[in-house]
Amino acid sequence: MPGMSAAVTSWLDVPTDSPFPVQNLPYGVFSYDGEAPRVGVAIGDHLLDLAPLAAAAGLDGGHVFQAPTLNPFLALGRPAWSAVRSWLTELLTHTAQRALVEGHLLPACEVTMHLPFEVADYVDFYSSRHHAENVGRIFRPDSEPLSPNWPHMPLGYHGRAGTVVVSGTPIVRPSGQRKAPGEPAATYGPCLRLDIEAEVGFVVGASSRRGERVPTSAFREHVFGACLVNDWSARDIQAWEYVPLGPFLGKSFATSVSPWVLPLDALEAARVASPAQEPAVLDYLRDDGYGGLDLSLEVRCNGTVVSRPPFASMYWTPAQQLAHLTGNGASLRTGDLYASGTVSGPERTQRGSFLELSWNGAEPVTLDDGSTRTFLEDGDEVSISAWAPGADGSRIGFGSVTGRVFPAR
Amino acid sequence: MPGMSAAVTSWLDVPTDSPFPVQNLPYGVFSYDGEAPRVGVAIGDHLLDLAPLAAAAGLDGGHVFQAPTLNPFLALGRPAWSAVRSWLTELLTHTAQRALVEGHLLPACEVTMHLPFEVADYVDFYSSRHHAENVGRIFRPDSEPLSPNWPHMPLGYHGRAGTVVVSGTPIVRPSGQRKAPGEPAATYGPCLRLDIEAEVGFVVGASSRRGERVPTSAFREHVFGACLVNDWSARDIQAWEYVPLGPFLGKSFATSVSPWVLPLDALEAARVASPAQEPAVLDYLRDDGYGGLDLSLEVRCNGTVVSRPPFASMYWTPAQQLAHLTGNGASLRTGDLYASGTVSGPERTQRGSFLELSWNGAEPVTLDDGSTRTFLEDGDEVSISAWAPGADGSRIGFGSVTGRVFPAR
Repeated sequence: MPGMSAAVTSWLDVPTDSPFPVQNLPYGVFSYDGEAPRVGVAIGDHLLDLAPLAAAAGLDGGHVFQAPTLNPFLALGRPAWSAVRSWLTELLTHTAQRALVEGHLLPACEVTMHLPFEVADYVDFYSSRHHAENVGRIFRPDSEPLSPNWPHMPLGYHGRAGTVVVSGTPIVRPSGQRKAPGEPAATYGPCLRLDIEAEVGFVVGASSRRGERVPTSAFREHVFGACLVNDWSARDIQAWEYVPLGPFLGKSFATSVSPWVLPLDALEAARVASPAQEPAVLDYLRDDGYGGLDLSLEVRCNGTVVSRPPFASMYWTPAQQLAHLTGNGASLRTGDLYASGTVSGPERTQRGSFLELSWNGAEPVTLDDGSTRTFLEDGDEVSISAWAPGADGSRIGFGSVTGRVFPAR
Repeated sequence: MPGMSAAVTSWLDVPTDSPFPVQNLPYGVFSYDGEAPRVGVAIGDHLLDLAPLAAAAGLDGGHVFQAPTLNPFLALGRPAWSAVRSWLTELLTHTAQRALVEGHLLPACEVTMHLPFEVADYVDFYSSRHHAENVGRIFRPDSEPLSPNWPHMPLGYHGRAGTVVVSGTPIVRPSGQRKAPGEPAATYGPCLRLDIEAEVGFVVGASSRRGERVPTSAFREHVFGACLVNDWSARDIQAWEYVPLGPFLGKSFATSVSPWVLPLDALEAARVASPAQEPAVLDYLRDDGYGGLDLSLEVRCNGTVVSRPPFASMYWTPAQQLAHLTGNGASLRTGDLYASGTVSGPERTQRGSFLELSWNGAEPVTLDDGSTRTFLEDGDEVSISAWAPGADGSRIGFGSVTGRVFPAR
């Protein structure tokens, strides 16, 4: 097209509908043929085996790719992240490099993906106004839907880092204590209202010092990239336990993440202004820089699309979440994960949880096979995927985070 | 005394008022003379340098003591913990071993203590009924002091593992967002109500599998020992943020732990029945085995004893906390820390926080120098110590967890 600059393309054949064109280059940890897990990058239907490639190319510091987690690479900081991305882009777009690279491409269908990073601390925010209002209307019908503090700061809480698992890991239905308002006594047993939360997670690379806050302007310096998160939730356990200390066992049994972490550099074309914030935020939360991200999520249950949550509708931005999280001097560590909270848009078809989709069970969701769901049944498989605009007019994807529900033990 | 069995004593001269007689033998991580941090055991005024001692004695697996954290030793599990304790007891009580041991004793005053274990996940419970009732009366004067769920399960929440620090680490006054009920707008600034929480922490050694709960009867199999915890709290930040997701930035800036972890084996003589639980607990929370611990805590502010909280008064037991924490199938990792929640007894002089001691500022506490405190001032030093009955009629101590408040940055 006249006037358009030529799109960067790879000499490698990348299917047009692949989430992983050369404009993406997300990082993950894989194993192949019984060998030890190590770092790879997704490109089309292939996976680039970085450790031997870096060794063959004599890349300085390339030993970080031999690790079974992304953490050593993440700890290097933004200059290294940018340098490696430029190097990979050159390798995959210059035909002269083809011979060097080809021997290190593996068929993506033949590798096993692992948890991409060792999670240091896991924080979950609550940054969709639509989600927070829906939950408020459902759980506290006689009160204002939003708590008074909600419009003033991105509310969050710490989750359990040790039960963050990679996509594909079986999800055993949790048991726990619950007592619905009408019930005479508390009981312990398998969760009766198992749910999902479709979220986007941000992965910290560069650490910070205790006692020093990280301003919104330092977001790109500390955050390496983003992944998908399914924050599995046991609504009956959560409803009984959450006053006054917040969610605990209703969430801590499992949190799934996608195997691929997209570098922020891949998401530059997805940046958008976030919704106007009224009342105006306090200075430490002003985000004049990074803003929001135009990510289109899709939630499938047993193959049926049940929701298309728009991340661009999130009220609080990832840079504001980071500034709030560290506003008390809490330090960051490599591998910290903070998730956005459930992504729900204004429309009914944009809600990121079954709690909202079924309005706490009152309005069942119909799947393509004609069956209906209020909450998840044993055997159900939930898959959350997302796409974003990439550079050069491309479309890039997060892949997906998937999990199947197994019966309680 | 006729009829009393002879107390086990060490050939090493241990001062009679030492918290570390041979019946204790707590573990910590120290460095000495610029060398790398490694594992040590406290005995009287000395520290036993385990790595070279184990090497000299040819102890199988003794390399775990060269690590800069207790985690490799903790991961070995109870049979190894018991074997090492028996070995140490023999070394320190049989004069024949004196020559082997003496070369590996260091003066405790010359070593630097470090964080004893790498914290995996940190959970804080809320298990003192007196504390929970006090907080309820202060924060929610128009409601029942206890939430309806409190008598049915040990409520808890996840804290920030990355900001757990060792005793002696400076505590920078956190800043944060707060809005008192009468104030027209939220503000961001240095905490105005900085507080402590005197707690006892339990350290997980042996991990468990995701999806499998750990019954109360398996407490000793998974938990290695106990330490002291000061869960520093910014009450103004906490009060504004905690509905509906619980404590977050009001706690996450710092949590201090004592440098010594006492093995459960040292606390056998301290075991006591816990208070009667009414209503009866659900089966998964029945603790017919371990029960409570008779630990006497002491809180000092700038040297003045301001409180003596009795751990024996805690409503929920550590085994019940563990069973609840894993009741949804959440897995345990080596290095998980779970704390009891503030230890407050029924008496006014037994309250484990300034929030309670000063009744939210209404009743200032007078220190020995004549000054008064409602909450902590810059420069204040808080020290929490604890003692317990040990074997052979001995008295064993936790040492202390200490921290000084520095001005906000």
